[in-house]
Amino acid sequence: MEDYRVKPHQKIDLAKDYDPNDYGEWKGKKAKGVARLTELRAELDALQQVLYAEHQHKALVLIQAMDTAGKDGTIRAVFDGVNPQGVHVASFKVPTQIEADHDFLWRVHAQVPAKGELVVFNRSQYEQVLVVRVHNLEPEKEWRKHYQQINDFEKLLTDTGTTILKFFLNIDLDEQKQRLIERIDTPEKQWKFSPGDLPERKLWWQYMEAYQEAISQTSTEYAPWHIVPANHNWYRNLVVAEVIVEALKKLDMHYPQAAEDLDQYKKDLNEEVIEKKGN
Amino acid sequence: MEDYRVKPHQKIDLAKDYDPNDYGEWKGKKAKGVARLTELRAELDALQQVLYAEHQHKALVLIQAMDTAGKDGTIRAVFDGVNPQGVHVASFKVPTQIEADHDFLWRVHAQVPAKGELVVFNRSQYEQVLVVRVHNLEPEKEWRKHYQQINDFEKLLTDTGTTILKFFLNIDLDEQKQRLIERIDTPEKQWKFSPGDLPERKLWWQYMEAYQEAISQTSTEYAPWHIVPANHNWYRNLVVAEVIVEALKKLDMHYPQAAEDLDQYKKDLNEEVIEKKGN
Repeated sequence: MEDYRVKPHQKIDLAKDYDPNDYGEWKGKKAKGVARLTELRAELDALQQVLYAEHQHKALVLIQAMDTAGKDGTIRAVFDGVNPQGVHVASFKVPTQIEADHDFLWRVHAQVPAKGELVVFNRSQYEQVLVVRVHNLEPEKEWRKHYQQINDFEKLLTDTGTTILKFFLNIDLDEQKQRLIERIDTPEKQWKFSPGDLPERKLWWQYMEAYQEAISQTSTEYAPWHIVPANHNWYRNLVVAEVIVEALKKLDMHYPQAAEDLDQYKKDLNEEVIEKKGN
Repeated sequence: MEDYRVKPHQKIDLAKDYDPNDYGEWKGKKAKGVARLTELRAELDALQQVLYAEHQHKALVLIQAMDTAGKDGTIRAVFDGVNPQGVHVASFKVPTQIEADHDFLWRVHAQVPAKGELVVFNRSQYEQVLVVRVHNLEPEKEWRKHYQQINDFEKLLTDTGTTILKFFLNIDLDEQKQRLIERIDTPEKQWKFSPGDLPERKLWWQYMEAYQEAISQTSTEYAPWHIVPANHNWYRNLVVAEVIVEALKKLDMHYPQAAEDLDQYKKDLNEEVIEKKGN
Protein backbone atom coordinates (compact mmCIF):
# COMPACT_ATOMS: atom_id res chain seq x y z
CA MET A 1 0.00 0.00 0.00
CA GLU A 2 3.01 2.24 0.49
CA ASP A 3 3.23 2.56 -3.32
CA TYR A 4 0.19 4.79 -3.33
CA ARG A 5 1.67 7.28 -0.90
CA VAL A 6 3.12 10.34 -2.59
CA LYS A 7 6.51 11.36 -1.24
CA PRO A 8 6.89 14.96 -0.03
CA HIS A 9 6.65 17.27 -3.02
CA GLN A 10 7.15 14.35 -5.43
CA LYS A 11 6.48 15.27 -9.06
CA ILE A 12 3.70 13.11 -10.39
CA ASP A 13 2.17 12.31 -13.76
CA LEU A 14 -1.30 10.89 -13.21
CA ALA A 15 -1.79 9.70 -16.78
CA LYS A 16 1.55 7.94 -16.97
CA ASP A 17 2.42 6.67 -13.52
CA TYR A 18 -0.89 5.85 -11.87
CA ASP A 19 -3.07 3.15 -13.37
CA PRO A 20 -6.70 3.47 -12.18
CA ASN A 21 -7.12 -0.24 -12.93
CA ASP A 22 -4.24 -1.29 -10.70
CA TYR A 23 -4.90 -4.06 -8.16
CA GLY A 24 -1.46 -4.12 -6.57
CA GLU A 25 -0.89 -7.67 -5.37
CA TRP A 26 -4.61 -8.38 -5.26
CA LYS A 27 -5.22 -9.19 -8.92
CA GLY A 28 -7.76 -12.00 -9.22
CA LYS A 29 -8.38 -11.96 -5.48
CA LYS A 30 -11.54 -9.89 -5.23
CA ALA A 31 -13.26 -12.23 -2.78
CA LYS A 32 -10.22 -12.16 -0.50
CA GLY A 33 -10.04 -8.40 -0.82
CA VAL A 34 -13.67 -8.02 0.20
CA ALA A 35 -13.12 -10.33 3.17
CA ARG A 36 -10.05 -8.33 4.14
CA LEU A 37 -12.12 -5.14 4.09
CA THR A 38 -14.52 -6.69 6.60
CA GLU A 39 -11.58 -7.39 8.91
CA LEU A 40 -10.25 -3.87 8.43
CA ARG A 41 -13.61 -2.38 9.35
CA ALA A 42 -13.59 -4.31 12.60
CA GLU A 43 -10.05 -3.08 13.29
CA LEU A 44 -11.05 0.46 12.47
CA ASP A 45 -14.00 0.17 14.83
CA ALA A 46 -11.69 -0.96 17.64
CA LEU A 47 -9.20 1.82 16.84
CA GLN A 48 -11.94 4.44 16.86
CA GLN A 49 -13.05 3.25 20.29
CA VAL A 50 -9.61 3.63 21.81
CA LEU A 51 -9.09 6.96 20.00
CA TYR A 52 -12.27 8.20 21.66
CA ALA A 53 -11.47 6.72 25.06
CA GLU A 54 -7.87 7.92 25.19
CA HIS A 55 -8.93 11.43 24.18
CA GLN A 56 -5.47 12.48 23.00
CA HIS A 57 -5.19 12.05 19.24
CA LYS A 58 -7.27 13.55 16.45
CA ALA A 59 -7.84 11.87 13.09
CA LEU A 60 -8.69 13.55 9.80
CA VAL A 61 -9.39 11.60 6.62
CA LEU A 62 -9.72 13.77 3.53
CA ILE A 63 -11.19 12.55 0.25
CA GLN A 64 -11.05 14.26 -3.13
CA ALA A 65 -12.02 12.91 -6.54
CA MET A 66 -13.71 13.63 -9.82
CA ASP A 67 -17.49 13.06 -10.06
CA THR A 68 -18.57 9.42 -9.92
CA ALA A 69 -15.16 8.30 -8.61
CA GLY A 70 -16.84 7.14 -5.43
CA LYS A 71 -16.30 9.61 -2.61
CA ASP A 72 -19.66 8.72 -1.04
CA GLY A 73 -19.26 5.03 -1.75
CA THR A 74 -15.81 4.91 -0.16
CA ILE A 75 -16.99 6.66 2.98
CA ARG A 76 -19.87 4.24 3.25
CA ALA A 77 -17.80 1.12 2.59
CA VAL A 78 -14.93 2.02 4.90
CA PHE A 79 -16.83 3.51 7.84
CA ASP A 80 -19.94 1.37 7.84
CA GLY A 81 -19.62 -0.71 10.97
CA VAL A 82 -17.69 1.94 12.87
CA ASN A 83 -19.71 3.50 15.69
CA PRO A 84 -21.84 6.20 14.03
CA GLN A 85 -21.21 8.36 17.06
CA GLY A 86 -17.48 8.10 16.49
CA VAL A 87 -17.31 9.33 12.91
CA HIS A 88 -18.32 12.74 11.68
CA VAL A 89 -18.47 13.34 7.94
CA ALA A 90 -18.12 16.97 6.84
CA SER A 91 -19.12 17.64 3.23
CA PHE A 92 -17.92 20.81 1.57
CA LYS A 93 -20.23 21.99 -1.19
CA VAL A 94 -20.24 25.24 -3.14
CA PRO A 95 -19.47 27.88 -0.48
CA THR A 96 -22.41 29.84 0.89
CA GLN A 97 -22.26 33.63 0.73
CA ILE A 98 -21.01 33.82 4.32
CA GLU A 99 -18.37 31.18 3.70
CA ALA A 100 -17.23 32.89 0.51
CA ASP A 101 -16.92 36.16 2.43
CA HIS A 102 -14.26 34.56 4.66
CA ASP A 103 -10.91 33.08 3.74
CA PHE A 104 -11.21 29.60 2.25
CA LEU A 105 -9.87 27.83 5.35
CA TRP A 106 -12.45 29.39 7.67
CA ARG A 107 -15.24 26.89 7.12
CA VAL A 108 -12.75 24.03 7.00
CA HIS A 109 -11.10 24.93 10.30
CA ALA A 110 -14.51 24.89 11.97
CA GLN A 111 -14.87 21.19 11.15
CA VAL A 112 -11.48 19.74 12.09
CA PRO A 113 -11.47 16.94 14.65
CA ALA A 114 -11.07 17.62 18.37
CA LYS A 115 -9.28 15.22 20.74
CA GLY A 116 -10.71 11.74 20.44
CA GLU A 117 -12.56 12.54 17.20
CA LEU A 118 -12.40 11.03 13.73
CA VAL A 119 -13.60 13.38 11.00
CA VAL A 120 -13.94 12.61 7.30
CA PHE A 121 -13.81 15.45 4.78
CA ASN A 122 -15.87 14.81 1.64
CA ARG A 123 -14.17 17.42 -0.55
CA SER A 124 -12.12 19.98 1.35
CA GLN A 125 -9.83 23.01 1.27
CA TYR A 126 -8.41 21.54 -1.94
CA GLU A 127 -11.40 22.72 -3.97
CA GLN A 128 -9.70 26.12 -3.82
CA VAL A 129 -6.83 24.87 -6.01
CA LEU A 130 -9.01 22.60 -8.17
CA VAL A 131 -12.41 23.93 -9.23
CA VAL A 132 -11.28 27.50 -8.47
CA ARG A 133 -8.25 27.06 -10.73
CA VAL A 134 -10.01 25.24 -13.56
CA HIS A 135 -12.85 27.76 -13.68
CA ASN A 136 -10.64 30.81 -13.19
CA LEU A 137 -12.55 31.87 -10.08
CA GLU A 138 -9.38 33.51 -8.79
CA PRO A 139 -6.34 34.82 -10.64
CA GLU A 140 -3.39 32.42 -10.70
CA LYS A 141 -1.29 34.53 -8.35
CA GLU A 142 -4.06 34.14 -5.74
CA TRP A 143 -4.77 30.41 -5.99
CA ARG A 144 -1.06 29.66 -6.23
CA LYS A 145 -0.62 31.07 -2.71
CA HIS A 146 -3.04 28.50 -1.38
CA TYR A 147 -0.54 25.63 -1.59
CA GLN A 148 1.60 27.17 1.10
CA GLN A 149 -1.44 28.32 3.07
CA ILE A 150 -2.78 24.77 3.05
CA ASN A 151 0.60 23.34 4.06
CA ASP A 152 0.85 25.80 6.94
CA PHE A 153 -2.69 25.00 8.04
CA GLU A 154 -2.09 21.26 7.95
CA LYS A 155 1.17 21.76 9.84
CA LEU A 156 -0.75 23.51 12.59
CA LEU A 157 -3.20 20.62 12.77
CA THR A 158 -0.54 17.93 12.89
CA ASP A 159 1.59 19.88 15.36
CA THR A 160 -1.40 19.89 17.66
CA GLY A 161 -2.10 16.18 17.54
CA THR A 162 -3.94 15.49 14.28
CA THR A 163 -3.18 12.56 12.01
CA ILE A 164 -4.05 13.69 8.48
CA LEU A 165 -4.56 11.18 5.65
CA LYS A 166 -5.42 12.52 2.21
CA PHE A 167 -6.81 10.38 -0.60
CA PHE A 168 -7.30 11.10 -4.28
CA LEU A 169 -9.61 8.48 -5.80
CA ASN A 170 -8.22 8.01 -9.27
CA ILE A 171 -10.58 6.90 -12.05
CA ASP A 172 -10.09 7.48 -15.75
CA LEU A 173 -12.15 9.23 -18.37
CA ASP A 174 -13.63 6.02 -19.78
CA GLU A 175 -14.64 4.74 -16.38
CA GLN A 176 -16.42 8.02 -15.68
CA LYS A 177 -18.28 7.73 -18.97
CA GLN A 178 -19.44 4.21 -18.09
CA ARG A 179 -20.58 5.35 -14.68
CA LEU A 180 -22.53 8.31 -16.07
CA ILE A 181 -24.22 6.06 -18.62
CA GLU A 182 -25.02 3.58 -15.87
CA ARG A 183 -26.72 6.37 -13.91
CA ILE A 184 -28.82 7.21 -16.94
CA ASP A 185 -29.70 3.57 -17.54
CA THR A 186 -30.61 2.69 -13.94
CA PRO A 187 -34.01 4.09 -12.86
CA GLU A 188 -33.05 4.31 -9.13
CA LYS A 189 -29.90 6.22 -10.02
CA GLN A 190 -31.33 8.62 -12.59
CA TRP A 191 -32.02 11.34 -10.04
CA LYS A 192 -28.29 11.47 -9.37
CA PHE A 193 -27.51 12.38 -12.95
CA SER A 194 -26.89 16.06 -13.34
CA PRO A 195 -26.59 17.57 -16.82
CA GLY A 196 -23.96 19.85 -15.32
CA ASP A 197 -21.60 16.86 -15.06
CA LEU A 198 -21.07 16.82 -18.81
CA PRO A 199 -19.42 20.21 -19.32
CA GLU A 200 -17.24 19.47 -16.24
CA ARG A 201 -16.13 16.28 -17.94
CA LYS A 202 -14.84 18.24 -20.90
CA LEU A 203 -12.41 19.91 -18.50
CA TRP A 204 -10.99 16.53 -17.46
CA TRP A 205 -7.38 17.21 -18.37
CA GLN A 206 -7.42 20.65 -16.83
CA TYR A 207 -8.62 18.98 -13.63
CA MET A 208 -5.91 16.35 -13.86
CA GLU A 209 -3.30 19.06 -14.19
CA ALA A 210 -4.76 20.85 -11.18
CA TYR A 211 -4.81 17.63 -9.15
CA GLN A 212 -1.25 16.75 -10.14
CA GLU A 213 0.15 20.04 -9.05
CA ALA A 214 -1.95 20.22 -5.89
CA ILE A 215 -0.93 16.74 -4.81
CA SER A 216 2.70 17.38 -5.56
CA GLN A 217 2.78 20.72 -3.76
CA THR A 218 0.93 19.54 -0.66
CA SER A 219 2.06 15.98 -0.10
CA THR A 220 4.19 16.42 2.98
CA GLU A 221 5.82 14.20 5.56
CA TYR A 222 3.14 15.20 8.04
CA ALA A 223 0.10 15.14 5.74
CA PRO A 224 0.68 12.74 2.84
CA TRP A 225 -1.50 12.21 -0.21
CA HIS A 226 -2.42 8.75 -1.44
CA ILE A 227 -3.37 8.20 -5.07
CA VAL A 228 -5.85 5.35 -4.96
CA PRO A 229 -6.64 3.24 -8.05
CA ALA A 230 -10.40 3.63 -8.14
CA ASN A 231 -11.78 2.01 -11.30
CA HIS A 232 -12.54 -1.04 -9.15
CA ASN A 233 -14.60 -0.09 -6.13
CA TRP A 234 -13.60 -3.00 -3.94
CA TYR A 235 -9.90 -2.33 -4.41
CA ARG A 236 -10.34 1.39 -3.83
CA ASN A 237 -12.12 0.67 -0.54
CA LEU A 238 -9.47 -1.81 0.49
CA VAL A 239 -6.60 0.64 -0.09
CA VAL A 240 -8.28 3.47 1.81
CA ALA A 241 -9.19 1.24 4.76
CA GLU A 242 -5.74 -0.32 4.92
CA VAL A 243 -3.96 3.04 4.93
CA ILE A 244 -6.21 4.42 7.69
CA VAL A 245 -5.88 1.33 9.87
CA GLU A 246 -2.10 1.26 9.49
CA ALA A 247 -1.77 4.93 10.40
CA LEU A 248 -4.01 4.67 13.45
CA LYS A 249 -2.23 1.56 14.68
CA LYS A 250 1.05 3.45 14.66
CA LEU A 251 -0.36 5.90 17.20
CA ASP A 252 -0.09 3.13 19.80
CA MET A 253 -3.14 4.30 21.68
CA HIS A 254 -4.27 2.97 25.05
CA TYR A 255 -7.40 2.96 27.13
CA PRO A 256 -7.19 5.33 30.08
CA GLN A 257 -6.33 4.02 33.52
CA ALA A 258 -9.29 2.98 35.60
CA ALA A 259 -10.12 5.01 38.68
CA GLU A 260 -8.35 3.96 41.87
CA ASP A 261 -10.17 2.12 44.63
CA LEU A 262 -12.60 0.30 42.35
CA ASP A 263 -13.11 -2.35 45.03
CA GLN A 264 -14.21 0.26 47.50
CA TYR A 265 -16.72 1.68 45.02
CA LYS A 266 -18.08 -1.78 44.42
CA LYS A 267 -18.47 -2.26 48.15
CA ASP A 268 -20.24 1.10 48.42
CA LEU A 269 -22.61 0.10 45.65
CA ASN A 270 -23.43 -3.19 47.27
CA GLU A 271 -24.00 -1.61 50.65
CA GLU A 272 -25.76 1.55 49.58
CA VAL A 273 -29.23 2.32 50.83
CA ILE A 274 -31.31 4.49 48.53
CA GLU A 275 -34.75 5.10 49.87
CA LYS A 276 -37.41 3.76 47.55
CA LYS A 277 -39.73 6.46 46.40
CA GLY A 278 -42.64 6.69 48.80
CA ASN A 279 -45.73 7.52 46.83
CA MET B 1 -45.15 0.37 20.06
CA GLU B 2 -47.76 3.08 20.32
CA ASP B 3 -48.03 2.26 24.06
CA TYR B 4 -44.71 3.89 24.69
CA ARG B 5 -45.72 7.18 23.17
CA VAL B 6 -46.73 9.77 25.74
CA LYS B 7 -49.90 11.66 24.86
CA PRO B 8 -49.73 15.45 24.81
CA HIS B 9 -49.22 16.68 28.37
CA GLN B 10 -50.22 13.28 29.77
CA LYS B 11 -49.50 12.95 33.50
CA ILE B 12 -47.10 10.09 34.04
CA ASP B 13 -45.77 8.07 36.97
CA LEU B 14 -42.55 6.40 35.91
CA ALA B 15 -42.34 4.12 38.96
CA LYS B 16 -45.91 2.88 38.67
CA ASP B 17 -46.89 2.87 35.02
CA TYR B 18 -43.68 2.11 33.11
CA ASP B 19 -41.97 -1.22 33.67
CA PRO B 20 -38.32 -1.08 32.55
CA ASN B 21 -38.47 -4.87 32.12
CA ASP B 22 -41.42 -4.75 29.75
CA TYR B 23 -41.12 -6.69 26.49
CA GLY B 24 -44.48 -5.75 25.00
CA GLU B 25 -45.58 -8.63 22.80
CA TRP B 26 -42.00 -9.81 22.39
CA LYS B 27 -41.60 -11.77 25.61
CA GLY B 28 -39.53 -14.89 24.98
CA LYS B 29 -38.82 -13.81 21.41
CA LYS B 30 -35.38 -12.27 21.74
CA ALA B 31 -33.98 -13.99 18.64
CA LYS B 32 -36.91 -12.79 16.58
CA GLY B 33 -36.53 -9.32 18.03
CA VAL B 34 -32.87 -9.19 17.10
CA ALA B 35 -33.68 -10.37 13.57
CA ARG B 36 -36.39 -7.74 13.34
CA LEU B 37 -33.88 -5.07 14.32
CA THR B 38 -31.67 -6.11 11.40
CA GLU B 39 -34.62 -5.62 9.06
CA LEU B 40 -35.41 -2.26 10.61
CA ARG B 41 -31.85 -1.09 10.11
CA ALA B 42 -32.07 -1.92 6.42
CA GLU B 43 -35.38 -0.02 6.24
CA LEU B 44 -33.86 2.92 8.06
CA ASP B 45 -30.94 2.92 5.66
CA ALA B 46 -33.31 3.06 2.69
CA LEU B 47 -35.39 5.79 4.36
CA GLN B 48 -32.29 7.87 5.07
CA GLN B 49 -31.28 7.63 1.43
CA VAL B 50 -34.57 8.96 0.17
CA LEU B 51 -34.64 11.61 2.93
CA TYR B 52 -31.28 12.82 1.65
CA ALA B 53 -32.19 12.57 -2.02
CA GLU B 54 -35.57 14.27 -1.70
CA HIS B 55 -34.02 17.11 0.31
CA GLN B 56 -37.31 18.26 1.84
CA HIS B 57 -37.75 16.76 5.28
CA LYS B 58 -35.52 17.01 8.36
CA ALA B 59 -35.30 14.32 11.03
CA LEU B 60 -34.29 14.78 14.66
CA VAL B 61 -33.97 11.87 17.07
CA LEU B 62 -33.38 12.93 20.66
CA ILE B 63 -32.19 10.56 23.37
CA GLN B 64 -32.17 11.16 27.12
CA ALA B 65 -31.49 8.71 29.92
CA MET B 66 -29.79 8.14 33.23
CA ASP B 67 -26.15 6.96 33.20
CA THR B 68 -25.62 3.41 31.93
CA ALA B 69 -29.13 3.26 30.42
CA GLY B 70 -27.56 2.89 27.00
CA LYS B 71 -27.66 6.16 25.08
CA ASP B 72 -24.44 5.29 23.24
CA GLY B 73 -25.40 1.66 22.79
CA THR B 74 -28.79 2.53 21.33
CA ILE B 75 -27.29 4.96 18.83
CA ARG B 76 -24.81 2.34 17.78
CA ALA B 77 -27.34 -0.48 17.50
CA VAL B 78 -29.98 1.49 15.65
CA PHE B 79 -27.82 3.50 13.26
CA ASP B 80 -25.07 1.02 12.52
CA GLY B 81 -25.60 0.06 8.91
CA VAL B 82 -27.07 3.43 7.97
CA ASN B 83 -24.78 5.46 5.70
CA PRO B 84 -22.31 7.19 8.06
CA GLN B 85 -22.53 10.24 5.86
CA GLY B 86 -26.28 10.38 6.42
CA VAL B 87 -26.33 10.45 10.20
CA HIS B 88 -24.84 13.14 12.38
CA VAL B 89 -24.70 12.55 16.13
CA ALA B 90 -24.53 15.68 18.29
CA SER B 91 -23.52 15.06 21.90
CA PHE B 92 -24.26 17.73 24.47
CA LYS B 93 -21.87 17.65 27.41
CA VAL B 94 -21.42 20.12 30.26
CA PRO B 95 -21.73 23.52 28.55
CA THR B 96 -18.48 25.34 27.76
CA GLN B 97 -18.07 28.87 29.07
CA ILE B 98 -19.18 30.35 25.74
CA GLU B 99 -22.21 28.06 25.60
CA ALA B 100 -23.15 28.89 29.16
CA ASP B 101 -22.92 32.60 28.36
CA HIS B 102 -25.73 32.14 25.81
CA ASP B 103 -29.30 30.98 26.31
CA PHE B 104 -29.56 27.20 26.67
CA LEU B 105 -31.07 26.68 23.21
CA TRP B 106 -28.23 28.46 21.41
CA ARG B 107 -25.87 25.51 21.11
CA VAL B 108 -28.76 23.17 20.40
CA HIS B 109 -30.17 25.26 17.58
CA ALA B 110 -26.77 25.23 15.88
CA GLN B 111 -26.99 21.44 15.55
CA VAL B 112 -30.55 20.86 14.28
CA PRO B 113 -30.93 19.01 10.98
CA ALA B 114 -31.12 20.85 7.66
CA LYS B 115 -33.20 19.58 4.73
CA GLY B 116 -32.31 16.00 3.93
CA GLU B 117 -30.43 15.50 7.20
CA LEU B 118 -30.90 13.05 10.06
CA VAL B 119 -29.44 14.24 13.35
CA VAL B 120 -29.29 12.35 16.63
CA PHE B 121 -29.05 14.27 19.90
CA ASN B 122 -27.20 12.41 22.64
CA ARG B 123 -28.52 14.46 25.57
CA SER B 124 -30.14 17.75 24.57
CA GLN B 125 -31.94 20.90 25.61
CA TYR B 126 -33.65 18.78 28.28
CA GLU B 127 -30.56 18.82 30.48
CA GLN B 128 -31.72 22.32 31.41
CA VAL B 129 -34.79 20.92 33.19
CA LEU B 130 -33.04 17.79 34.50
CA VAL B 131 -29.50 18.22 35.86
CA VAL B 132 -30.07 21.96 36.25
CA ARG B 133 -33.18 21.32 38.32
CA VAL B 134 -31.78 18.47 40.42
CA HIS B 135 -28.60 20.38 41.25
CA ASN B 136 -30.32 23.73 41.75
CA LEU B 137 -28.19 25.39 39.08
CA GLU B 138 -31.04 27.81 38.42
CA PRO B 139 -33.90 28.94 40.65
CA GLU B 140 -37.17 27.09 40.06
CA LYS B 141 -38.87 30.09 38.51
CA GLU B 142 -36.14 30.11 35.85
CA TRP B 143 -36.02 26.42 34.92
CA ARG B 144 -39.78 26.21 35.00
CA LYS B 145 -39.94 28.69 32.11
CA HIS B 146 -37.89 26.29 29.99
CA TYR B 147 -40.80 23.90 29.38
CA GLN B 148 -42.62 26.50 27.34
CA GLN B 149 -39.40 27.73 25.73
CA ILE B 150 -38.61 24.18 24.64
CA ASN B 151 -42.13 23.64 23.31
CA ASP B 152 -41.95 26.86 21.32
CA PHE B 153 -38.54 25.90 19.96
CA GLU B 154 -39.70 22.45 18.93
CA LYS B 155 -42.80 23.99 17.34
CA LEU B 156 -40.57 26.18 15.22
CA LEU B 157 -38.58 23.15 14.10
CA THR B 158 -41.62 21.04 13.24
CA ASP B 159 -43.37 23.97 11.53
CA THR B 160 -40.35 24.21 9.27
CA GLY B 161 -40.21 20.59 8.23
CA THR B 162 -38.58 18.68 11.09
CA THR B 163 -39.83 15.35 12.37
CA ILE B 164 -38.89 15.21 16.06
CA LEU B 165 -38.82 11.92 17.97
CA LYS B 166 -37.86 11.98 21.64
CA PHE B 167 -36.87 8.91 23.63
CA PHE B 168 -36.37 8.39 27.34
CA LEU B 169 -34.52 5.12 27.93
CA ASN B 170 -36.04 3.83 31.13
CA ILE B 171 -33.95 1.60 33.39
CA ASP B 172 -34.44 1.07 37.11
CA LEU B 173 -32.20 1.63 40.08
CA ASP B 174 -31.26 -2.05 40.40
CA GLU B 175 -30.36 -2.35 36.75
CA GLN B 176 -28.09 0.68 37.04
CA LYS B 177 -26.38 -0.89 40.03
CA GLN B 178 -25.74 -4.10 38.11
CA ARG B 179 -24.36 -2.16 35.17
CA LEU B 180 -22.02 -0.09 37.35
CA ILE B 181 -20.75 -3.24 39.06
CA GLU B 182 -20.25 -4.86 35.67
CA ARG B 183 -18.11 -1.89 34.62
CA ILE B 184 -15.98 -2.34 37.70
CA ASP B 185 -15.67 -6.08 37.13
CA THR B 186 -14.81 -5.96 33.43
CA PRO B 187 -11.22 -4.81 32.74
CA GLU B 188 -12.03 -3.34 29.28
CA LYS B 189 -14.87 -1.33 30.78
CA GLN B 190 -13.19 -0.07 33.93
CA TRP B 191 -12.02 3.15 32.33
CA LYS B 192 -15.67 4.05 31.81
CA PHE B 193 -16.41 3.92 35.51
CA SER B 194 -16.47 7.36 37.02
CA PRO B 195 -16.64 7.75 40.81
CA GLY B 196 -18.86 10.76 40.14
CA ASP B 197 -21.62 8.39 39.01
CA LEU B 198 -22.25 7.28 42.60
CA PRO B 199 -23.38 10.57 44.14
CA GLU B 200 -25.57 11.15 41.06
CA ARG B 201 -27.18 7.80 41.70
CA LYS B 202 -28.25 8.92 45.15
CA LEU B 203 -30.34 11.59 43.46
CA TRP B 204 -32.21 8.94 41.45
CA TRP B 205 -35.70 9.85 42.62
CA GLN B 206 -35.12 13.56 42.21
CA TYR B 207 -34.10 12.78 38.63
CA MET B 208 -37.18 10.63 38.10
CA GLU B 209 -39.35 13.47 39.30
CA ALA B 210 -37.58 15.87 36.96
CA TYR B 211 -37.97 13.44 34.03
CA GLN B 212 -41.64 12.84 34.79
CA GLU B 213 -42.50 16.47 34.81
CA ALA B 214 -40.33 17.31 31.79
CA ILE B 215 -41.83 14.51 29.72
CA SER B 216 -45.35 15.41 30.71
CA GLN B 217 -44.87 19.12 30.03
CA THR B 218 -43.16 18.67 26.69
CA SER B 219 -44.79 15.67 25.08
CA THR B 220 -46.76 17.34 22.33
CA GLU B 221 -48.65 16.28 19.24
CA TYR B 222 -45.79 17.56 17.11
CA ALA B 223 -42.83 16.36 19.20
CA PRO B 224 -43.83 13.32 21.24
CA TRP B 225 -41.84 11.56 23.95
CA HIS B 226 -41.48 7.79 24.04
CA ILE B 227 -40.71 6.03 27.28
CA VAL B 228 -38.69 3.01 26.27
CA PRO B 229 -38.29 -0.03 28.54
CA ALA B 230 -34.52 -0.27 28.66
CA ASN B 231 -33.47 -2.96 31.13
CA HIS B 232 -33.13 -5.29 28.16
CA ASN B 233 -30.88 -3.79 25.51
CA TRP B 234 -32.27 -5.71 22.58
CA TYR B 235 -35.82 -4.68 23.31
CA ARG B 236 -34.81 -1.06 23.88
CA ASN B 237 -33.09 -1.01 20.48
CA LEU B 238 -36.06 -2.64 18.82
CA VAL B 239 -38.53 -0.07 20.19
CA VAL B 240 -36.41 2.91 19.20
CA ALA B 241 -35.76 1.59 15.69
CA GLU B 242 -39.41 0.67 15.15
CA VAL B 243 -40.66 4.11 16.20
CA ILE B 244 -38.17 5.92 13.95
CA VAL B 245 -38.90 3.73 10.93
CA GLU B 246 -42.66 4.10 11.36
CA ALA B 247 -42.41 7.87 11.62
CA LEU B 248 -40.15 8.23 8.59
CA LYS B 249 -42.37 5.94 6.51
CA LYS B 250 -45.32 8.20 7.18
CA LEU B 251 -43.50 11.07 5.47
CA ASP B 252 -44.12 9.30 2.17
CA MET B 253 -40.87 10.51 0.66
CA HIS B 254 -39.88 10.12 -2.98
CA TYR B 255 -36.75 10.29 -5.04
CA PRO B 256 -36.53 13.46 -7.13
CA GLN B 257 -37.50 13.38 -10.77
CA ALA B 258 -34.69 12.57 -13.14
CA ALA B 259 -33.49 15.31 -15.48
CA GLU B 260 -35.31 15.55 -18.79
CA ASP B 261 -33.75 14.39 -22.03
CA LEU B 262 -31.66 11.62 -20.48
CA ASP B 263 -31.52 9.87 -23.85
CA GLN B 264 -29.97 12.92 -25.41
CA TYR B 265 -27.32 13.11 -22.69
CA LYS B 266 -26.52 9.47 -23.21
CA LYS B 267 -26.13 10.09 -26.91
CA ASP B 268 -23.88 13.08 -26.19
CA LEU B 269 -21.73 10.94 -23.93
CA ASN B 270 -21.40 8.20 -26.47
CA GLU B 271 -20.51 10.65 -29.22
CA GLU B 272 -18.32 13.03 -27.27
CA VAL B 273 -14.77 13.64 -28.32
CA ILE B 274 -12.42 14.64 -25.53
CA GLU B 275 -8.90 15.10 -26.69
CA LYS B 276 -6.51 12.73 -24.96
CA LYS B 277 -3.81 14.52 -23.12
CA GLY B 278 -0.87 14.99 -25.40
CA ASN B 279 2.26 14.55 -23.32
